[in-house]
Amino acid sequence: MESAIDEHLKCPRTRTRRVEDDYTPPYPVWSARADRAVTQVVMGYFGVQSLGAAQQGRACAALMRIARDFTRPDGPLHHDLTHYVDAEGHDNMIAIAYWTDPAAFARWSATPEVDGWWRSEERLHEGLGYFREIVSPRVQHFETMFNTPDRLEGIGVAMGGVSGELQEHGYWGSMRDRIPLSQTDPMSPSGTRAAIGDAPAPGRRVRIAGHEHVAMIRSGQEWTDTTGQERTLYLEEMEPVLREGMDFLRDQGLAIGCYSNRYMQHLDAQGAPLQKSFGLSFWRSLADMERWAESHPTHVAIFGSFMRYVQALNFQLQLRVYHEVSVLKTDEQRYEYVNCHARTGLMNGMG
Amino acid sequence: MESAIDEHLKCPRTRTRRVEDDYTPPYPVWSARADRAVTQVVMGYFGVQSLGAAQQGRACAALMRIARDFTRPDGPLHHDLTHYVDAEGHDNMIAIAYWTDPAAFARWSATPEVDGWWRSEERLHEGLGYFREIVSPRVQHFETMFNTPDRLEGIGVAMGGVSGELQEHGYWGSMRDRIPLSQTDPMSPSGTRAAIGDAPAPGRRVRIAGHEHVAMIRSGQEWTDTTGQERTLYLEEMEPVLREGMDFLRDQGLAIGCYSNRYMQHLDAQGAPLQKSFGLSFWRSLADMERWAESHPTHVAIFGSFMRYVQALNFQLQLRVYHEVSVLKTDEQRYEYVNCHARTGLMNGMG
Repeated sequence: MESAIDEHLKCPRTRTRRVEDDYTPPYPVWSARADRAVTQVVMGYFGVQSLGAAQQGRACAALMRIARDFTRPDGPLHHDLTHYVDAEGHDNMIAIAYWTDPAAFARWSATPEVDGWWRSEERLHEGLGYFREIVSPRVQHFETMFNTPDRLEGIGVAMGGVSGELQEHGYWGSMRDRIPLSQTDPMSPSGTRAAIGDAPAPGRRVRIAGHEHVAMIRSGQEWTDTTGQERTLYLEEMEPVLREGMDFLRDQGLAIGCYSNRYMQHLDAQGAPLQKSFGLSFWRSLADMERWAESHPTHVAIFGSFMRYVQALNFQLQLRVYHEVSVLKTDEQRYEYVNCHARTGLMNGMG
Repeated sequence: MESAIDEHLKCPRTRTRRVEDDYTPPYPVWSARADRAVTQVVMGYFGVQSLGAAQQGRACAALMRIARDFTRPDGPLHHDLTHYVDAEGHDNMIAIAYWTDPAAFARWSATPEVDGWWRSEERLHEGLGYFREIVSPRVQHFETMFNTPDRLEGIGVAMGGVSGELQEHGYWGSMRDRIPLSQTDPMSPSGTRAAIGDAPAPGRRVRIAGHEHVAMIRSGQEWTDTTGQERTLYLEEMEPVLREGMDFLRDQGLAIGCYSNRYMQHLDAQGAPLQKSFGLSFWRSLADMERWAESHPTHVAIFGSFMRYVQALNFQLQLRVYHEVSVLKTDEQRYEYVNCHARTGLMNGMG
C-alpha cells in the first residue's frame, strides 16, 4: 500500500492528514502515475453547443473537425467524445483532450489551422456555440482515483502509469488528502470569477477569468462489463440517485458553490452513446465540493448505495469508477465561450 | 457562532481542523459548557443484569436501590434510568449518573452503604449480575452536541451551561474537531484491554483495564414532542435504519473495533419506557468509530436519512438529538462486572 501522493511530490507537512499511518482502506483503489519529468498537465474541454435536431448534423461535424485537429502534431495523448443536454435544452458535445506537456499543448493550439479556426469571426455567425475550458493543473494540484488498475480514464490514460494500492481513500476527506498541495495548503478560494471584456451573452466571444483555487471534478463510471444483479443494482438503484444529485447541482448548485455541473455520456467515434458517463463540475472551492458530497442527501445516498453495492458484491465489481479532481490556480484556467448561452459552463450565474 | 472548544481549553494547534475559519454549518447545534473550575467529570454506568421475567422484580429493586443511593451526600448531579435486552437475551438496566467533581464521586462511592453493598460477596450469589463502568474524562477529552440549547441530556445536565451555536458540526470529522485534545493529539489507541485477576465468566467478579484512548459515545434521540409527518418520518424511516445499525454493532462490531454496543431506552422512575433512546458504545479508537460512521451502509443511511429529514422539515425539528463522545486515557476508565455473562460490556470478545 502506498500514498496517493507520489514520492517526488511529498514534502514536509504543515497540515495533518485525516487518517493515521495505520489506516487500512476497505477496498483497493489506484492512482495514475506520470513520469517525474511531467510537472504540469493540460485538460482541454472543447465544446460545441447546438439547439434542436436541425443543428445536430452541423454540431457533429464541428466536433469531428476538432477531433481531427487532435491528430495534428503536438495533439493530445488521449481524448474522449461526450454529450449532454443542458438545463436550457441545448445539446453540448465536448471533446475532452489531455496533454502531459503544456508546451506541446501551446504549440498545438498555435497551429495555424487550429488557431485560425478558433479565432475566426465565422464562429460567431454559424448558429452554433463553441467553447474551450482549458485547465492546466501542475502535478501538485490534482489527484486521480480508479477502482481498477487497468483501463484508466481521462488524464490517467495520458499519464501512462499506475500506482500500487492507495492508502488515502474510503473516508471523507481522502480526496483532499490525495492532492499533494494539501500537505501544506488549505486550498481556500480567493477572488471571484470575472468576465474579461464583454459580459456573457449569446452572440459574443466571452472570456472568463477563474479565481484562485477553483475546484473541478470529473467523476465517472462505466457499466459496460456489468451483468445480472450488478447491472440491475447500478441501473435501477444507483443511477437514478446519481442522476438526482447531478440534476440538483445543475439546477440549484450555484447557491452552494457549484458553478457548473454536467452529467455527460461518452460517445463513440460515430456519435453513438457508450455505457460510460461522468459528472463534470466546477466549484468555488474544494471545501464547497466536500460539504456537498458529505451532507447533501443525494450524494450521501449515492455514497451509501455505492458502499452497500460493493459490500453486496463482496468488492468484486465489474462496474468501473474513477475520478480526477483538480484545485486550480488562477493561471491554470482559461475559459472562452463563443456564441454560447449565458448559463454555459463557468459563465453560469454571472449574467 | 463559536468553537465547540471552550475558550479556556484552546491551545496552540499542532494539528489542523478539517474546516477553515469561514466554514458555516448547515443548521445550528450547541455544546454543554461547565464552569472553568470543572476539570474532570465522572460518567458512571451502574448496571443490573437479569434473565427472564422471573428475575425482573428483583432486578428492578436492585436498580431502585442504586438510584436511592444517588440521593446520598456527594451523589450525582443527574442520572437516567435505562434498559435494553442484549444479544444473549439478558435484560440490562443501567442507572447512568454524572458528576462534575471526581472527588465528590470518590467520597460518594466510599460511602459505607454504597461501597459495602458493591463489595459484598452477596452480589455474586443473588442470581443477578451487576456492573459498574465508570469513565472519568478530563474536560480536554470529551465533547457534547445538542440540536436544541434547552433540555440538555447526560453530562450536559450536570455541566449546567450551554454554548452559543457551534462551528464544528455538519461535516465528517467534526466530532474529532470538537474534542479539545484533537488540537494536538491524533488520539491513536495503544495497548489492549486486559482482565485484572480472573478472566471473564459468570459467577466471578471481573475487573477489566481499558487501554489508552478507548473511545466512547452516547448518542441519543427523544421523539416525545414529534407529531404528524415528523413522527412518522422518525418512527417509520429513521428508527428502523438506526436499529439495523445498532444491531450490526452489537452482533458484528468486534471485527471493526467496537467492543460493545447497547441500544437503550429510557425508563421513568416507575420503570415505564419513555420516548427517548440512545446508542452507547465503546470502541478501540475514535478512528474506528469514525470509519464505521462514515462508511458502513447502515450509518451512512442513518446520516443520509437524517439530513433528508431535517431538510424536509426545513430544520424545524421537534426531534431532539444529542451525543457525548469521550476519548479515554487509561486512568479514566474503571470497569467491573459481578456475575455477568462474559459478553457484557467491555468483557465482550475477551472470553
